[in-house]
Amino acid sequence: MAGSPGDPVAVAWAERTMKELSLADVHTEPVTVRRWERGDESAQIVAPVPQRLVVTALGGSGGTGARGVEGDVVEVASLADLEKLPPDSARGKIVFLDAPTRRARDGSGYGEGARGRYRGPGIAKKLGAVALLLRSLGTDHDRLAHTGAMAADDHPLPAAALSVPDAELLHRVLDEKKTARVRLVLGAHTSGEARSANVIGEVTGRERPLEIVLVGAHLDSWDLGEGAIDDGAGVGIALETARVISALPTRPRRTLRVVLFANEEHGLDGAHAYATVHGQEALKHVVAMEADFGADAVYAVRWLGDLATRDRFVALARLLAPLDVERDDAPGGGGADVSPLRELGVPILDLRQDGSRYFDVHHTANDTVDKIDPGVYASAAAAFATAAWAAADMEGDFGRVEETSRKSKDW
Amino acid sequence: MAGSPGDPVAVAWAERTMKELSLADVHTEPVTVRRWERGDESAQIVAPVPQRLVVTALGGSGGTGARGVEGDVVEVASLADLEKLPPDSARGKIVFLDAPTRRARDGSGYGEGARGRYRGPGIAKKLGAVALLLRSLGTDHDRLAHTGAMAADDHPLPAAALSVPDAELLHRVLDEKKTARVRLVLGAHTSGEARSANVIGEVTGRERPLEIVLVGAHLDSWDLGEGAIDDGAGVGIALETARVISALPTRPRRTLRVVLFANEEHGLDGAHAYATVHGQEALKHVVAMEADFGADAVYAVRWLGDLATRDRFVALARLLAPLDVERDDAPGGGGADVSPLRELGVPILDLRQDGSRYFDVHHTANDTVDKIDPGVYASAAAAFATAAWAAADMEGDFGRVEETSRKSKDW
Repeated sequence: MAGSPGDPVAVAWAERTMKELSLADVHTEPVTVRRWERGDESAQIVAPVPQRLVVTALGGSGGTGARGVEGDVVEVASLADLEKLPPDSARGKIVFLDAPTRRARDGSGYGEGARGRYRGPGIAKKLGAVALLLRSLGTDHDRLAHTGAMAADDHPLPAAALSVPDAELLHRVLDEKKTARVRLVLGAHTSGEARSANVIGEVTGRERPLEIVLVGAHLDSWDLGEGAIDDGAGVGIALETARVISALPTRPRRTLRVVLFANEEHGLDGAHAYATVHGQEALKHVVAMEADFGADAVYAVRWLGDLATRDRFVALARLLAPLDVERDDAPGGGGADVSPLRELGVPILDLRQDGSRYFDVHHTANDTVDKIDPGVYASAAAAFATAAWAAADMEGDFGRVEETSRKSKDW
Repeated sequence: MAGSPGDPVAVAWAERTMKELSLADVHTEPVTVRRWERGDESAQIVAPVPQRLVVTALGGSGGTGARGVEGDVVEVASLADLEKLPPDSARGKIVFLDAPTRRARDGSGYGEGARGRYRGPGIAKKLGAVALLLRSLGTDHDRLAHTGAMAADDHPLPAAALSVPDAELLHRVLDEKKTARVRLVLGAHTSGEARSANVIGEVTGRERPLEIVLVGAHLDSWDLGEGAIDDGAGVGIALETARVISALPTRPRRTLRVVLFANEEHGLDGAHAYATVHGQEALKHVVAMEADFGADAVYAVRWLGDLATRDRFVALARLLAPLDVERDDAPGGGGADVSPLRELGVPILDLRQDGSRYFDVHHTANDTVDKIDPGVYASAAAAFATAAWAAADMEGDFGRVEETSRKSKDW
């Protein structure tokens, strides 16, 4: 996790690994990250039926103090319902935001829930709630809670995710008994800032070395698991893309730049730092790609660029067809780390990995390396490498993204 | 868990529920159980690469004290390999018994591993080890450890299960680095004895009310989950068997007796108490059945009885065929709670439930009610009810189990 003792270890590993791969211009660029720690945490239904609950704090959550907080539970089925709660209806209570996460290949069920995770605690705080409990943004049924970032001011509300079975239990208790009182102890606290870094390395282009095809992933992960899926897998894909391309007899025309971003999870600090430092060379970024959706297969490719250059995207997508990657003509978004570049007009190649299983383990203790199927994972890396090579070697470019398409969706 | 605050709550619930079902002669029979508590627990690899490990104490484990124990890890692949370790090779070290659990419909992979869990800690203690770590007896890949009973003397070794991903991690570290040092803190301790009870109710037979068909399950569970699968599901099957049969227009010739046993998990105390109290009426027990293998479908029926009465078993099994239950001519075992009755010669009807998924959640925090498929579960209860009715209504009986077939397998 960003700011943890593992953060500089990861940075050093990445720099060393890029050098072992003989990448060019391997270096780090400093990034300041917030430091937030989880501490001890526990929860239980205290009435009408005593039951322990599996919880974990949302990233940025406030702490409850060692004595915890206790309150009657007010359940809402959606962020919209939370926003509609009458003033004072949650005062002194614990808000329970109980919206299931829909399983979807494109991960669209997560986006809906993530807005609630991000904005829910602030709304509950304004309503006078003492805490917020969130049904985990997860498609699994494990007794493991899914963490993730919430919007946090200087005095953030204590907010925690419940594992899916625990959320369903709490829902049943409320449904049958019409009341539930919960006690929550969160040791979460911020502890200043720390130094981290983006780690960068290149395969220098043979004809236009100043033009850049960027492949990004992020070095940080949440603290609960190993971060194998999020985003160790993406780091591997980005490095493998560079390794494969540098091993070819002919280098592509343009430079391939691998950027391993700092602190994607808890503030996008690395992405913002990169856009600030490299904003002036935004025009030199021909396209940006990001690997931050696990280790499953790429099933489709989307694109965002100057519509006048669409034929080039169609030609590029044709090269991915033998890898069972379909062309999808919906506008590409790319991941969080390339969004500041997109806002600067940098075109996006959006290689869409199958996310059907991703939210079973995402942001939980279950994010471990045994969840990766090596053969499927290799196929995902092959798709990224093919797309990156094609973009770096094509004759023309994708122009710039139109102003109206640059903004990120608002959480 | 036996001896916990939930134990008398479960006993009171069972007695009340049997009365609500209008069962006859509903009563409890006292059982003394051991009280063992898990306390706080944690583990980590301290060298050569720091990593937290997910652990949970084996039932009956000793504690480490708050400061924990630390030692180099000696890995063995099986109980047989542990038994072959040279004297002093594990002195001051932590033994890591790393045997994967084979997935099998009949659950046979568990029996192999359970011997290691039960006997391993005692063997490691004799070798001078400071603790034992066991790869969880589980077919899942969740970061949740599987508990279960170990043989414990007055000073049991601290012994804990590692989640499967953590065991695989420790194995990889040992494989690559040739050494690993682990720190283990277990708050486990025994705290005397407690009073529990077997809960008993009947559907009185219309012709031979003193002859008994027993359907058993156990009221206790391990502390980590809800005990929905082990053995809430079995309790439901036993009660549903009684409910369905008592609702028929004609009662069977013999009495159906439901016994919900105390403390199966940690000493089989309820089963031994029942056999002691009811040993003199063992001859009146025509057959015993047990539901202690989750909520999945019954796929086969086995039997143990006087071989001269085999035609009656064949006729009974024919009634189960429409429920997709096959006759299996291997000798029936029955579960742990009916084993003392089998040793007294009581015949067994062994309805075999599909255990393919059972050891994914067994003895973990994941043992929650959402793991039960209601339709499949209902089919299992239908098979038990059909078999119980047929045994209670048949003309003759199954005689007695031969002496040589009565003994349980030794763990």
